[in-house]
Amino acid sequence: MVQRLSHLFLRTLREDPVDAEVASHKLLVRAGYIRRAAPGVYTWLPLGLKVLGKIETIVREEMNAIGAQEVHFPALLPREPYQATNRWDEYGDNLFRLKDRKGADMLLAPTHEEMFTLLVKDLYSSYKDLPVYLYQIQTKYRDEARPRAGLLRGREFIMKDSYSFNVDDQGLDEAYQAHRAAYIRIFERLGLEIEIVQAQSGAMGGSRSEEFLHPTPIGEDTFVRSEGGYAANVEAVTTVAPEPVDASNTPAASVLDTPDSPTIEILVQQSNALHPRPEGPWTAADTLKNVIVAVTLPDGSRQLVAIGLPGDRAVDMGRLEANVGALLGVGGEVEVEAATEEDLKKFPQLVKGYIGPGLSLDHKFLGVESATGIPYYLDPRVVEGSAWITGANEDQKHVYNLVAGRDFEADGIIEACEVREGDPAPDGSGPLIAARGIEMGHIFALGRKYAEALGLKVLDQNGKLQTVTMGSYGVGVTRALAAIAEGNHDDRGLIWPRNLAPADVHLVVTGKGAEVLEGAEKLVAELEAAGLDIMFDDRPKVSPGVKFGDAELLGVPTILVVGRGFADGKIEIKDRRSGQAREVALDEAVAEILAEVGR
Amino acid sequence: MVQRLSHLFLRTLREDPVDAEVASHKLLVRAGYIRRAAPGVYTWLPLGLKVLGKIETIVREEMNAIGAQEVHFPALLPREPYQATNRWDEYGDNLFRLKDRKGADMLLAPTHEEMFTLLVKDLYSSYKDLPVYLYQIQTKYRDEARPRAGLLRGREFIMKDSYSFNVDDQGLDEAYQAHRAAYIRIFERLGLEIEIVQAQSGAMGGSRSEEFLHPTPIGEDTFVRSEGGYAANVEAVTTVAPEPVDASNTPAASVLDTPDSPTIEILVQQSNALHPRPEGPWTAADTLKNVIVAVTLPDGSRQLVAIGLPGDRAVDMGRLEANVGALLGVGGEVEVEAATEEDLKKFPQLVKGYIGPGLSLDHKFLGVESATGIPYYLDPRVVEGSAWITGANEDQKHVYNLVAGRDFEADGIIEACEVREGDPAPDGSGPLIAARGIEMGHIFALGRKYAEALGLKVLDQNGKLQTVTMGSYGVGVTRALAAIAEGNHDDRGLIWPRNLAPADVHLVVTGKGAEVLEGAEKLVAELEAAGLDIMFDDRPKVSPGVKFGDAELLGVPTILVVGRGFADGKIEIKDRRSGQAREVALDEAVAEILAEVGR
Repeated sequence: MVQRLSHLFLRTLREDPVDAEVASHKLLVRAGYIRRAAPGVYTWLPLGLKVLGKIETIVREEMNAIGAQEVHFPALLPREPYQATNRWDEYGDNLFRLKDRKGADMLLAPTHEEMFTLLVKDLYSSYKDLPVYLYQIQTKYRDEARPRAGLLRGREFIMKDSYSFNVDDQGLDEAYQAHRAAYIRIFERLGLEIEIVQAQSGAMGGSRSEEFLHPTPIGEDTFVRSEGGYAANVEAVTTVAPEPVDASNTPAASVLDTPDSPTIEILVQQSNALHPRPEGPWTAADTLKNVIVAVTLPDGSRQLVAIGLPGDRAVDMGRLEANVGALLGVGGEVEVEAATEEDLKKFPQLVKGYIGPGLSLDHKFLGVESATGIPYYLDPRVVEGSAWITGANEDQKHVYNLVAGRDFEADGIIEACEVREGDPAPDGSGPLIAARGIEMGHIFALGRKYAEALGLKVLDQNGKLQTVTMGSYGVGVTRALAAIAEGNHDDRGLIWPRNLAPADVHLVVTGKGAEVLEGAEKLVAELEAAGLDIMFDDRPKVSPGVKFGDAELLGVPTILVVGRGFADGKIEIKDRRSGQAREVALDEAVAEILAEVGR
Repeated sequence: MVQRLSHLFLRTLREDPVDAEVASHKLLVRAGYIRRAAPGVYTWLPLGLKVLGKIETIVREEMNAIGAQEVHFPALLPREPYQATNRWDEYGDNLFRLKDRKGADMLLAPTHEEMFTLLVKDLYSSYKDLPVYLYQIQTKYRDEARPRAGLLRGREFIMKDSYSFNVDDQGLDEAYQAHRAAYIRIFERLGLEIEIVQAQSGAMGGSRSEEFLHPTPIGEDTFVRSEGGYAANVEAVTTVAPEPVDASNTPAASVLDTPDSPTIEILVQQSNALHPRPEGPWTAADTLKNVIVAVTLPDGSRQLVAIGLPGDRAVDMGRLEANVGALLGVGGEVEVEAATEEDLKKFPQLVKGYIGPGLSLDHKFLGVESATGIPYYLDPRVVEGSAWITGANEDQKHVYNLVAGRDFEADGIIEACEVREGDPAPDGSGPLIAARGIEMGHIFALGRKYAEALGLKVLDQNGKLQTVTMGSYGVGVTRALAAIAEGNHDDRGLIWPRNLAPADVHLVVTGKGAEVLEGAEKLVAELEAAGLDIMFDDRPKVSPGVKFGDAELLGVPTILVVGRGFADGKIEIKDRRSGQAREVALDEAVAEILAEVGR
């Protein structure tokens, strides 16, 4: 087909949109692929829709190839199923909620686990019906606090989400692996480099999950990998804890003066000055820092939590947010911030800068069963028997030789410390290296959480009811388009991979005479007859400079120029990515162009 | 491709869904094409999605053929553009409204005039950019008071909506005609009989509009047509008013006793008994009935209105609702009901059963400038000079010879009377015949309403700013699927038109031996190689009766049976619609089947 620029609904822009920070956002708007309708909500213009369709086709083909079947759910859904799994509340402010004219609560679905579960429950009842894999390519909604980067984090976006239903764990594993393999093929066909990393299941629940991250400096996710092959989202990294320490020879804890030592740095200086030890100087790693944070739960309530960690480490709020909910026994997403003066006023027992867990197991200041009742979680490095300098809950005093397990204890272990480059990978495969990425896909072995909540059971071979086990699997379709644009551009514009471009070739006619235009029309007709998709810049009274600029901005991978050389029977074929151009004779042009585009 | 019933996500149901009233709703659910998710909100199962895709393709092809370009807007939109055109309020309860996490008002769009207008304003600025036709196939939302009939009137549905932008009226007319012609082709290809009728523009505004109605007894719209070619939605029918009457010889109005005559029927009896006239008996057509109704405006306020009409006619609430808003000077949709006792209590001047406009022009009871202030509108038949018996606003009294224009007047003329079969068509093309239909499409010559409200202007050839003129055009895509199902079924199930069916053939294997199954597999492979889409009922341990029943329910137009005759080298080809079956030799089967399906 031929898309004539004299007709195409397109206006390229010279200026970057004011709200755009990343290249894909700037270029997709400037090149007329998308247009902002509201914060985080975009309109698809003809060229954008065309590329989007090609991505959807690839996703659809690979899902069909593993036997998944396409369905399509509403975006507008009733509250009840999401109430049954508690996600109505757990999603917090991220969920768009509304009431219909009769006052019934409804939502715009961010993901459809509940509805798929109910659909299968509705129609299937026997192990013979399973396994079944279902998917949809559908518009989803998420009321992001900070929509950003154009399509990379929007509030209305397109996802492919699929769901597997099996009777047993082995079946779930097969479904999980089938989706994992399909995702690898999808991202290969999209030309997106992917790192598969271990991930937290978060609000979704479930036993196992992996993220498909596209490494890029503009990514919002931090992940780590080792040379030996370990890879995980930072939130999912587990700490290599030292062995427990034999504390039988450790002296009794003692409270010592540490004047003006509210920070770890000064505490270490003062300790070395006032309380030196024979084994060598104290370091920050010998101190136990106790950080009080305020956790906002999905129901909006505020809960203080104390985290104990070695003084040479910092709390990673993202890891803390990912992991604290499970310890507190709440599902869904929580938000964490430093506790305020206001928060701490309620606990006069805790002295700012000198907070500690207490002086003995009978004298606790932190922990659910302590004087304050504040839940207390320790970093995995604070192992049984390890001795610490930590706050004595008295102004300008610290306690020395406070031994974990002997003198203090906590309500649990938490992964909340920052992960550093050089930390050992948990599987022993070497030191960790950090990188940033965009989450392009996520696969979850959900297990039976949703099936249990919604009562999805089937009869097994023995006629007994068995709860079904499920997986859920997502690909960000609109996000993929943005990531592809992000990875395929230069300072002049977009450069689409050939299989995703809005046309095979972009033909610019620059000569002025009627003959040149006629020649271009003839070539376009021949290329169309040969099955090519042609973007044809036939605009009269537009300068060659503007036409070339638009061609480079739009990013069709092959640019054809019918102009100067036409009188000599030549046209130019130019590769958008390399910039290399060559002239070919007009009578060989079709064959040369077909070869160039790989047909 | 092959869809194996052993694998297909499908469960046919024997029972009609309890909430289903019409055949299409019952059968689409029973045959596993759709499934209800919430009132008026449906999930598309694999077979439904397949048929839907075929309908969308037809719509897309015909829109592309008139040079319309596809885009895709968000469903979730900000309030502001809809506020600018007042539709935020005018839509009343029909609009799904919500707030985002920052408290901003948003809506789920029922239609996108505003957004398309803003998009064109955003990108285009010159007459040279026009005309442009844009369309989308998109999910729309409307909070129907009474969602019903499955997909025929849902709250989430798919529409193709397109919009034309022109500089002048002639351009708009061309755009309107192009869409009209495209719609005729679309419905032809969908096999839907269509009557194009004149319509009211309603909440949409604009100068001219036509509806594409599919005649069916289950339709919600009533329309009328004449043998001479007139066709209109009942709401849009204009009354053929009689000529004005010379009232110079009509006696003065006089108030007479009419004991116990609160109804027209008794009034006519009493008039003939007590006040006979020489010209012959009084009839209901000699009386003027004054009906007080309560109109709920889009802003929720309640406004009383009086309608004066000949006593032999009734008010048609639908026509009244369609036409009263414009007279009251409000845009948007209004709701009308009979005034209540409570409403009337506020006007003690009006005596129930004896309500009239007043006894003279100085003595008005109805009308904006009367004692009550209630707006008063007359049926077009109440022409200047016509004389009436009507209420005297005194108990048991009526006034005789009250002459329109001489003794009473109104605030305007309203089309609010029922239209009857036999009434003359307004264009003189003969008496009207009534029928029912479903609105499948609607085209509006909007004019400049939206462009003015949102400031869409372009520079004309003289460098002057001109407001753009627009059209908007809709096709109900999901509704079309339901209407097709409604018109193509029998008591055993659906019968799809060949070009829309979820498969070309439905092959049922009924024999028990491995040989029969192998033979069926071989035939399926050959048919697939020949390019056919095959629904293949390969389910083991399912009885032939169940398989035949499912084949008839699903509605693929050609059913193949590999079974009893197979040992003799024969299979059966059966036409789903006619029920006619014939045996063909296995070695001629592929050729016979291809001929049968028209390949």
